[in-house]
Amino acid sequence: MSIVQVEQPVSLTGDLFVAGERRQGSAGVVRGIAAATGAPLEPAFGLATRADAADAAAAAADAAPVLRAAPRATRSALLRAIADGLDARAEELVARAALETGLPQPRLVGEVARTSGQLRLFAALVDSGLSEGVRIDPAQPDRAPAPRPELRQRRLPLGPVVVFGASNFPFAFSNAGSDVASALAAGCPVIVKSHQAHPGVAELVSAVIAAAVRDLGLPAGTYQALLGSGREVGTALVEDPRVRAVGFTGSRSGGLALMEAARTRPVPIPVYAEMSSVNPVIVLPSAATAERGRAFVDSLLLGAGQFCTNPGLVLVPVGEAGEAFVSAAAEAIRGRDGQVMLTDGIRDAYVAGRDALAGRAVRVAEGSEGERAPAASLMEASAAELLTEPALADEVFGASGLVLRYGDADGLLRALQALEGQLTATVHIDLATAPDAERALGAQLIEALEELAGRIVVNGWPTGVEVGHAIVHGGPFPATSDGRSTSVGTLAIERFQRAVAYQDVPESLLPEALRDVAVAAVPRLVDGAVVLP
Amino acid sequence: MSIVQVEQPVSLTGDLFVAGERRQGSAGVVRGIAAATGAPLEPAFGLATRADAADAAAAAADAAPVLRAAPRATRSALLRAIADGLDARAEELVARAALETGLPQPRLVGEVARTSGQLRLFAALVDSGLSEGVRIDPAQPDRAPAPRPELRQRRLPLGPVVVFGASNFPFAFSNAGSDVASALAAGCPVIVKSHQAHPGVAELVSAVIAAAVRDLGLPAGTYQALLGSGREVGTALVEDPRVRAVGFTGSRSGGLALMEAARTRPVPIPVYAEMSSVNPVIVLPSAATAERGRAFVDSLLLGAGQFCTNPGLVLVPVGEAGEAFVSAAAEAIRGRDGQVMLTDGIRDAYVAGRDALAGRAVRVAEGSEGERAPAASLMEASAAELLTEPALADEVFGASGLVLRYGDADGLLRALQALEGQLTATVHIDLATAPDAERALGAQLIEALEELAGRIVVNGWPTGVEVGHAIVHGGPFPATSDGRSTSVGTLAIERFQRAVAYQDVPESLLPEALRDVAVAAVPRLVDGAVVLP
Repeated sequence: MSIVQVEQPVSLTGDLFVAGERRQGSAGVVRGIAAATGAPLEPAFGLATRADAADAAAAAADAAPVLRAAPRATRSALLRAIADGLDARAEELVARAALETGLPQPRLVGEVARTSGQLRLFAALVDSGLSEGVRIDPAQPDRAPAPRPELRQRRLPLGPVVVFGASNFPFAFSNAGSDVASALAAGCPVIVKSHQAHPGVAELVSAVIAAAVRDLGLPAGTYQALLGSGREVGTALVEDPRVRAVGFTGSRSGGLALMEAARTRPVPIPVYAEMSSVNPVIVLPSAATAERGRAFVDSLLLGAGQFCTNPGLVLVPVGEAGEAFVSAAAEAIRGRDGQVMLTDGIRDAYVAGRDALAGRAVRVAEGSEGERAPAASLMEASAAELLTEPALADEVFGASGLVLRYGDADGLLRALQALEGQLTATVHIDLATAPDAERALGAQLIEALEELAGRIVVNGWPTGVEVGHAIVHGGPFPATSDGRSTSVGTLAIERFQRAVAYQDVPESLLPEALRDVAVAAVPRLVDGAVVLP
Repeated sequence: MSIVQVEQPVSLTGDLFVAGERRQGSAGVVRGIAAATGAPLEPAFGLATRADAADAAAAAADAAPVLRAAPRATRSALLRAIADGLDARAEELVARAALETGLPQPRLVGEVARTSGQLRLFAALVDSGLSEGVRIDPAQPDRAPAPRPELRQRRLPLGPVVVFGASNFPFAFSNAGSDVASALAAGCPVIVKSHQAHPGVAELVSAVIAAAVRDLGLPAGTYQALLGSGREVGTALVEDPRVRAVGFTGSRSGGLALMEAARTRPVPIPVYAEMSSVNPVIVLPSAATAERGRAFVDSLLLGAGQFCTNPGLVLVPVGEAGEAFVSAAAEAIRGRDGQVMLTDGIRDAYVAGRDALAGRAVRVAEGSEGERAPAASLMEASAAELLTEPALADEVFGASGLVLRYGDADGLLRALQALEGQLTATVHIDLATAPDAERALGAQLIEALEELAGRIVVNGWPTGVEVGHAIVHGGPFPATSDGRSTSVGTLAIERFQRAVAYQDVPESLLPEALRDVAVAAVPRLVDGAVVLP
C-alpha cells in the first residue's frame, strides 16, 4: 500500500523529544495509519532505543529537584501555557487526530477543549495552594512532660513519572492528558511513552509542551516523549531507578505487565493503571422503558464504544417487565452503521471478543457491518449465568453490549457480587412511579455499588466523565491497579505526591513554600483546624 | 526453667478473639517471657489455625458494610471507649507490659497515655468530618454544550484491615496502636495478628476493645485478635480475598514477605509496612559540641535503642572539628549499663549486628555488658567508606551507633546519596555561630533530605514521634513499603480510604452522610473552594 500524502499545515519530523532536543529514534520506524482507510501516513517516526530511554530518565532526574523547588506560580504558568498552546493549534491537532484515529471531528474538537480545560483546572488548583497539603502543629514549649516541637507538613512531588498514552483519547489521556497534567501540577517531570496509534498527534502535542517548557526556562527534562516498543522501551523506563511512578491507561494485560515490572524493582514504585471495566448498568422495573433502551444504545455506541466507561453490561428485568427496554435497544442497534475503529488491532480484538461472547450468549440484534467498520452488537443471557460463567463480564472493547436478565432483587444482587471492580456502576429508576419496595432496593443497590465501583451514576450514562473536583475515575481492581485513586479530576494530583514533615526547622532553613508568609497564602490545617488564606 | 507465677490483678485466659467470642487456639501454645529473666509466664496462649484466620476474615467481611454505613458518631464513640478503657486499666496494662517487654515503667505509662491520646485524636478527626473528604461539584443544568451533572465525593473505608503488632511498642504500635486507630477511624474492621513478644498485653488490650465493641452494639467482626505463626496465619490473613489492606511495623524481611503475599493475590491490596531506617543525623561543624554528643547518646540509648527512629548513623566532621562531639559521645556510652531487650531473639540479633559492624568499622566506645543486657556501642568509619561498603548503613536494631566522619560538604552530600530511604533525617547546626557557607549548606541539606526521608528534624533528635496532624512517620522505601504514607498522625487515616463519586444520585437514594443536612456539617470542597460548616 502506498503512503498517502496529506495536506498538513505543519511539517512533522518523526523525532523523539529527549533531554531538550529532538532526535531521531534508531530502533526502527513506525507510521501513523489513516484509520478510515488503513493507509500509512507521512512521516516515518523513529523508535527509541533503551539508550534514549536512559537519557530521558537522566534528564528527568536532573529536572526533578528544580521542579520541586520551583514556586507554585511556575507550575501553574506551565500548565496554562500548554493549554493555550493546544487551543491555539486546535485546528491542526484535530485534523491530524481525525486522520490517525478515525474519531469524528466534533468529538475531537471537544476533546482538545476538555484537555486544555483540564490543564487550566490543575493550574487553578496549584494557584489555590490546596494541593500543597500544608499542615502546621505549632510548638508548645511549655507542654509537660516534654515540650512539643513545631511540625510543618507539605506534599512534595514523587519525582520523574512515566506516562503511557492511551489509544482512545489522543488528547485527554495522552501526551497532555490527565496523568501528565496532574504529574506536572504536582511538580513531577514527565516522560510520555507516546501511543503508536497517533504518533503525529503525539508529536504535535509534544511540540506545544516542549515550547512551553523552553519559554518558561524550565529544565529540559521537565517533559519528554518517546515512541518505542512497550516491551523494550516501556519496560526500561518503568525499571529505571530514577523513575518514581507510572501512569497508564489501556489493556488489562498491559497494566498487569507494568505492575509486575514496577514491583520487582529493587525499589518498588506505584503504578496507576486504568485497565478494564464493563460499567454495569442496572435497570429497575420502573425504568425499563423504550426511551431508556434507546439512550443506552447511544451511550454504548459513542465513539465506536471505545471508552473505558462504555456500558458493556446492562441488567434488565426478565419477561414483560424488561421487554420495552430490550426491544427498543435492539431496534436502535439494528438501525446503526458500523463505525471505524482506532486501529486494525483494536478492530480485530473487538470482532474476536464480540464473536466469543456470541458463543456464550444469545444475539439479540446487530448493526450493519461497513468497510473497516464492524457492526455493533447486542446480546443477551440470564443474570444467573454470570455465576457459573464469569467470562460473560469480560470487557469487549468496542460497541458490544450484553443484556443480563434478572428475575428478582436477590438474583440481581447475586449477579453484582459476581462482578469484578468497576470504574462506574449505574442505576436506572423512575422515582415517581417506582413502588416502595423498588425504591428501597434502589437505596440498597447504591450501598452495594459503593464496594464495586469508583463512581455511581443514577439515571444517567457512564460515558461522560466530568473533569472537576468531585469526580472519581478509578475503581477497585482490575478497573484500576490502585482502587484508592482517580486519574481524572483534581484529586488525581495526590497520586504523585508524598507528605514530608519538617520538625523545628528554623525559618532561615525552611523551604520558601513553608515559611510564614507563604503558608499564610494557602489553605492549611493548623492544629487540625482548617484555616483559609 | 519453671513457669513463674506472677501476681496479676486479672486472669488471662490465653484465648483468641474471633467473631465475637473468645476461643482457645489449637495450633500449639506460646507463653509470654519475662524479658528481665527469660522465665516463661502464665498462662499458655493458644495459637490460631488457618481455620481461625478464615473465621476472622468472614466475620470482618460481615462487619464491613455495617461499619461503612455507621454514622461518624459511632466511630468516634468506639475510639473514645477504647481510649477510656485503656486509661482505666493502665495500671495492670503497664504491669504486664513491664514484665513481658522489660521496658521501664515510666516509658510504659507514657506509652499508654500516648495510645489513648492517639485514639482520642482520631475520634476528634472523625467528629470534625474532615476525614470524610467530602467534595461537591453542583449540577449546572444550563451548561452548553451539555448540562453538568451533580457530583458528590466522599472517602469510604477500604474494608477489613489486617494489622501486625510490633514488638517494640506494646501499646502505641500494637493491638490499639496507630494502625488500628486509623483503620477503625476510617470505618474498617480490624484483625490484629498480635505480637508474640507480649501476648498478655495483647489479650488485655483486646479485652478492652472487644468490650467497647460489644457495648456499642457493633458487629462481632469489628475487632478481632489472633496469636499465631506469621508464615501460616499471617500469610493466610494477607491472602484472604476478604482482606483489603495490611498494616505492619517490623523487620525488613517481614515487611517484604507481606508485600510479596499481598501483590501475588488475584486482587492485590496495599501493604503499609514500616521496615527499616537508620535515621541519619548530620552534625555540622558549628554544632559538633560535647553537649550534643551526650544528647546523641541519650537518644541512641533510649529504650535500649529499640526505636524505628533510633539515630543509628551520625555524620560528624573529620579531625578537630568533630572531636568534642565524638569524645563526649564515647565517654557517655562508656558510663552506661547494658539494657534488657524485648526478646532473646532481638538481643541475639542486636549482638550479631553490632559485632558484624565492628568488623567494618572501628570501635570507639562500649558500655558495660550486663546479665541479659548487652552493651551499647559506638563505632566509627569514614563517610567515604559508605560509597564502597553500603552495609555500613544497615540497621542494627538496638543501641548501636555508627559515626561517619566527613571531610567537606561534597563528601557529606555524596554519603547522603548512598543512603536508602529513611523515616527521619536530622541536621544539627548552631545558627548563631555558623559561618555563611555552613548556613547555606544547611539549607542545601534540607532540600537534599526531602528526597531521603519522611521527617526532617533540625537541632533535635528523631526518637520522639509527635502524634498530631502535621507529623509524618513514613518515608521512601525501604523505610516504608509505601513512601507516600504515614503511619502516625491524622493523615494515616487516608491509607485505609478510597474515594467514591456519586453522580446525580437523588437525595432519597443518597447515603445519609452525603445528604444536604449532613454535608453542611462537615468541611467540604464546593467547586474546588473550601467551605466550612
